[in-house]
Order: sequence, then structure tokens, then C-alpha cells
Amino acid sequence: MEVSSRNQLKGNVKMIKKGPINSEVTVALPGGIEIVSVITTYSAEKLDLREGAEVYALIKASEVVIGKD
Amino acid sequence: MEVSSRNQLKGNVKMIKKGPINSEVTVALPGGIEIVSVITTYSAEKLDLREGAEVYALIKASEVVIGKD
Amino acid sequence: MEVSSRNQLKGNVKMIKKGPINSEVTVALPGGIEIVSVITTYSAEKLDLREGAEVYALIKASEVVIGKD
Amino acid sequence: MEVSSRNQLKGNVKMIKKGPINSEVTVALPGGIEIVSVITTYSAEKLDLREGAEVYALIKASEVVIGKD
Amino acid sequence: MEVSSRNQLKGNVKMIKKGPINSEVTVALPGGIEIVSVITTYSAEKLDLREGAEVYALIKASEVVIGKD
Amino acid sequence: MEVSSRNQLKGNVKMIKKGPINSEVTVALPGGIEIVSVITTYSAEKLDLREGAEVYALIKASEVVIGKD
Repeated sequence: MEVSSRNQLKGNVKMIKKGPINSEVTVALPGGIEIVSVITTYSAEKLDLREGAEVYALIKASEVVIGKD
Repeated sequence: MEVSSRNQLKGNVKMIKKGPINSEVTVALPGGIEIVSVITTYSAEKLDLREGAEVYALIKASEVVIGKD
Repeated sequence: MEVSSRNQLKGNVKMIKKGPINSEVTVALPGGIEIVSVITTYSAEKLDLREGAEVYALIKASEVVIGKD
Repeated sequence: MEVSSRNQLKGNVKMIKKGPINSEVTVALPGGIEIVSVITTYSAEKLDLREGAEVYALIKASEVVIGKD
Repeated sequence: MEVSSRNQLKGNVKMIKKGPINSEVTVALPGGIEIVSVITTYSAEKLDLREGAEVYALIKASEVVIGKD
Repeated sequence: MEVSSRNQLKGNVKMIKKGPINSEVTVALPGGIEIVSVITTYSAEKLDLREGAEVYALIKASEVVIGKD
């Protein structure tokens, strides 16, 4: 499936921290950037996410806030 | 201000495309990754965003979806 | 690509209304339910969305509010 | 109260899975479609959600991503 | 309808700025706080929003970021 | 850092309820309004949030739904 999400960042699962409802998934992108995602534990298991797996962090443009020093 | 957003990606404004209500802001991160944000045109002007400006793309962890091939 | 979004509703594009930054995409599901999505016009064009095309409305569980009469 | 959410899908609570902060609520729509929502456990209790209760899954159009095979 | 949104702030419409797809609605709360919302122009018209009308700004807890100086 | 979030509501932390992945933070605004936020427990600890601390509830305009009686 292709998706409309404007931001599709390819990386590898670095860590998964499971909770009762939600889990935290850390994705390491090339170049040292890390993206943290919170998804349902059900989805983490359904996608069979494991450390090292190649994944995409998908982010809708309307969810991105801009900050400036 | 510090913010709770788990993802705070430092980069530079590459392009701003203004619409009547919303504007699209493209942020270039080091290493070639680009992040596209849609914010209100009012906010883009209030932050005085211009091409080249150093900014942060701020993304709440709960907004990140995981994809897998 | 498989995605972590808990809600993946298969349907067909019924209507696309394009604006300068965002576009409204109406997806007709089997059984008469319609889902309206707002995505960037860029994404609508990149996915080459057209009326009748088979698509999925993808919705993260954390974005769904519950109402009760 | 009427709400601006473009998507207001009427159904019945099929399952509630409670966690310490968030709970997962599954809503069965007519025709076999199910929608999963994550709301705070506080809200699930305040709305007195129980299996079988008639509810609405409310989804803002800007939260819907489009996928295409 | 009652809704699960944890934040339900009662106020009055102060301003509506309509665009082709989205509109900006400013809600004045008692005490001088203002909340700005972006909803589809379709929804603004369907709810028949007008300046002065009593409305609620509804915000899901998972959408609120915390900042600290 | 300045942020693009249209809604930046200054208040004080009234309560923090920590869960394994997410935490609930209640912010009391002047005038008696309270805002509830769900952020990751990691972020709550990183910002060193404590009862009484002065904080901002930051809300993107596109996340605000309008309700009307």
C-alpha cells in the first residue's frame, strides 16, 4: 500500500517498550536521527515489530508543529 | 520554551507555500531528509518563517504511524 | 507497505475537492458509509487519486473520539 | 451537542479494554466494519461506556490518511 | 451527544475566516482566553456557526503538548 | 523556543498521573479552566513536571473540534 502521509522516513526499529494498551517504538533513521512513535500494543504485535526490522515512520503534514529559537 | 514533543528535528526552512488558511512548510534536515508541515498561514507569518531559517519540526509520538514493507 | 493504523477501511473515491494547499477526499465504503479525509493536494496528486479508485481510509485509534447520545 | 467532526459513525460498543491511563474501545458499525478508538480510561468511565451501548465514532477529516494498493 | 474529549471549553464564536477547504474559527472563552480551531468550511456551514454563537472547543487529551519555560 | 501552535495556554500543573507509557497532566489555567494532556511518561520526566510548575498547554488549531448545543 502507498499512503498519503507526506513524511515517510525509512529506518530500523531500535527499541520497543510495551505497555498494556500502548507501546513506544523507537526508529533509528540513517544519520543518527531517532523518531519515537506510540502505537497500540496490538498493532506492534500485528506488524510483528522487532528490533532491527526495517520500517517507516509515517507522519501526516498537519501533525507537524514548527518551532524556532 | 521546552516542549514535551518526543520528536524535535532541527533543520532549515527549504520552502514555504502559502494558502489562504494553511501553509506548507518544508524543513530540510541534515543528511537530506525533508519534513513537510502544514500550519496556519497566521502562524507561519507570526514566526516570521523564511527560507533558510533554522527551525525545529516538532512531532508528538502519538501522531507517528509505523509502516512495514 | 503494511501500516500500524488500527482502522483500515476499504472503499472507493467518491469525490475530490481540491484547494490550494489541502484537498477533501470522500471515500464511499460498502454499505453506504462515507469517510471524508483532508490531505494535502500534493499527496492527492502524487497518489493519482481519481473518482472510483479503490483506496483505504486509514485512521489511528488515538484520533477517534467517542460520542454518546 | 452537535460536533464539527466530518465523520460520525453510529455503532455499538463491542469491547472495552482498560489500561491505567488509556482504554481501547471497539465500536461495531452496521455491515461488519469495526472502529477501534483509544481514549482516556477516565473518559470511558465518565461516559459510562458498556458493551452494547449505542455510540458514535467521531473522526476529524484532517486525521484521515488515504492508502492505495 | 456527549463526547469523550477530555477538554470541553465553553465560549462564543469571535471570528470565522473561511477558505476554500478549511476555515479558522476563533472562540472566546470567559476570562479572555481565545482558542483557534481549523475545521472544514463544510462543517462550519453545516453547524451554521456565526459570530456570537455559543460553542464548545473540544480537544482530545492526546493532542495537547506541554511546554515549559 | 517559540512554536507555531496557535493555542498556547499558560497555567500551572495541578496533577500528574503516571502510567507505564503515557501520563496524564492536568493544567489549571487562570479563571478555573483546566486542560488535560496525555504525553509520554518519558517526556513528563524529561521536562521535570511537578505540581505547581508553570507550564503551557500547546494545541495545534487543526486538532480543535467545535461543538454546539
